Amino acid sequence: MKPQILLTIGDINGIGPEIVLKTLRSNAITRKYDLTVISPLPVISYYCRKLKIKLNADNFNFIPIGSPKDVPQPGVLSARAGYVAGLAIETAISLCTSGEYDAIVTAPINKKALNMGGYRFDGHTEMLTKLSGAKDSCMTMLSDKFNIAFATTHPPIKKVSSLITKKLLNSKLGICANVLRNNLGIKNAEIAVLGLNPHAGDGGLIGDEERKVISPAIKFANSRLRGVKVTGPYSPDAFFAGRMYSRLDMTLAMYHDQGFIPFKMLAGHKGTNFTAGLSFVRTSPDHGTAFDIAGKNIASPESLIEAIRWADKLVRNKNKKK
Amino acid sequence: MKPQILLTIGDINGIGPEIVLKTLRSNAITRKYDLTVISPLPVISYYCRKLKIKLNADNFNFIPIGSPKDVPQPGVLSARAGYVAGLAIETAISLCTSGEYDAIVTAPINKKALNMGGYRFDGHTEMLTKLSGAKDSCMTMLSDKFNIAFATTHPPIKKVSSLITKKLLNSKLGICANVLRNNLGIKNAEIAVLGLNPHAGDGGLIGDEERKVISPAIKFANSRLRGVKVTGPYSPDAFFAGRMYSRLDMTLAMYHDQGFIPFKMLAGHKGTNFTAGLSFVRTSPDHGTAFDIAGKNIASPESLIEAIRWADKLVRNKNKKK
Repeated sequence: MKPQILLTIGDINGIGPEIVLKTLRSNAITRKYDLTVISPLPVISYYCRKLKIKLNADNFNFIPIGSPKDVPQPGVLSARAGYVAGLAIETAISLCTSGEYDAIVTAPINKKALNMGGYRFDGHTEMLTKLSGAKDSCMTMLSDKFNIAFATTHPPIKKVSSLITKKLLNSKLGICANVLRNNLGIKNAEIAVLGLNPHAGDGGLIGDEERKVISPAIKFANSRLRGVKVTGPYSPDAFFAGRMYSRLDMTLAMYHDQGFIPFKMLAGHKGTNFTAGLSFVRTSPDHGTAFDIAGKNIASPESLIEAIRWADKLVRNKNKKK
Repeated sequence: MKPQILLTIGDINGIGPEIVLKTLRSNAITRKYDLTVISPLPVISYYCRKLKIKLNADNFNFIPIGSPKDVPQPGVLSARAGYVAGLAIETAISLCTSGEYDAIVTAPINKKALNMGGYRFDGHTEMLTKLSGAKDSCMTMLSDKFNIAFATTHPPIKKVSSLITKKLLNSKLGICANVLRNNLGIKNAEIAVLGLNPHAGDGGLIGDEERKVISPAIKFANSRLRGVKVTGPYSPDAFFAGRMYSRLDMTLAMYHDQGFIPFKMLAGHKGTNFTAGLSFVRTSPDHGTAFDIAGKNIASPESLIEAIRWADKLVRNKNKKK
């Protein structure tokens, strides 16, 4: 049986619906994957009409949410759109935790709208973790070139240091080890941990997080995790300049831009955001709602399709293990 | 007349002397540039003997410092080596501020040794700024692909936010504008300013430095600086993913790894560290002392030679303006 994949519609005023519809109109895609869209019905009709997209309703499944009044207003930040985006995610989570579906691929949301809509979360990752009852999760970016995991997701730079604790790194490294073994099927994997500070602290001259937190966490992980070797902390710029990521299975970055700058430079759109640590698979495209081009028929579904491809692959790998 | 370039020997227990000597033995280099080495004499003799390097004393000038006892101990962290490294820089600064020389190219130092040796500075940049009496300076990385300037140099990540002030950005942008006009000879230049936080703060959802500090500083710079356009703050990962740097003359990064990760990935060793804002030109190679390979005859002078090439070019551009 094919993995059962849910597509959440995202913010209905962004490019989410457009890329979902452009994906569903491709017979090659709908033949290959078992897709179910969660969205208000008026959103589908509105964009099909506006973008002149014809869909074959036999090619995918549909779970309606919201109300007949949920008509999109492309480019507009709205509490109702945020609420609908959240409702789609909430519905998808309950369908996955109950075991009816295997994976969620999420179209982009606007965090401000999400919060205005009553879902008080920093973003998808936090919402998925909390509502699915997971102990912890780990944002990762996967690609054919290299994989990167994040110790923290989107905090402001000034808060990063206080969030990096031994407990946090311990949890993230445990999740990474599981991903490598269960979702990526890699035996005897090696995880590289980056330093937080320039030159990974330069022997304690530039901050003490490497010495006090990161190095002890690496040592502990090596004593605790089986079949995985953890090394570091590496000097972040030297690590990427020396292409060290290419011989390692996973790199744990300390904060968003430390990992996203090199990932996006190297993988371009050929990568996916994978939320590791949940009881189901969740992937997403690497772009945002792009309000400025919403409804203009110029958004590309490429990254969403890549996220679907990864979701399918990650579920299959997981099932093989059983 | 050729630009008069001083080479400081760096930490005598690191690879500094080795790359300096390997540079000086090349007739192609010494014919092209007017080079003067500042070093204790025993350091030169020690490494010439150890590495079997023969130099022609007619090809470069030499300014002796230190004492006959300054014999290197490759790979050893020592206060004396730190003192000698500092003394070479101090000597070079006074020779440039008095107008006798045009540029300093610095071999790498060890910051711990420098401080143990009595020079209480965070690194080259801070020392050069203070001792030369400059109001401020700006660390920049120049290459043929793109140029990047740094609002902060090497602080720990947790201190970065508190250092980013309107006054600081104002000063760095002024220095960048000067560099573009006077050292790089670019008219109607554009400077891009990166955000501090993920997604450049995402409209205030992730930190408020972009809204409160960076955007006002950009606005002020545009009202104050002539012949330069300043844009931003850009979302750092999207900026590099979209190769926006390639159409801009200078990018101002907020902290070390935000700029160094992409710079080193893109420019490799074909770039130089240029301290902008001083009354003279100062460049340096892009690597450290590499204590682990000191004295082993495997260090490459490539990056030092690149730094010399840039120092020569930057002085010539500056002189053209006069």
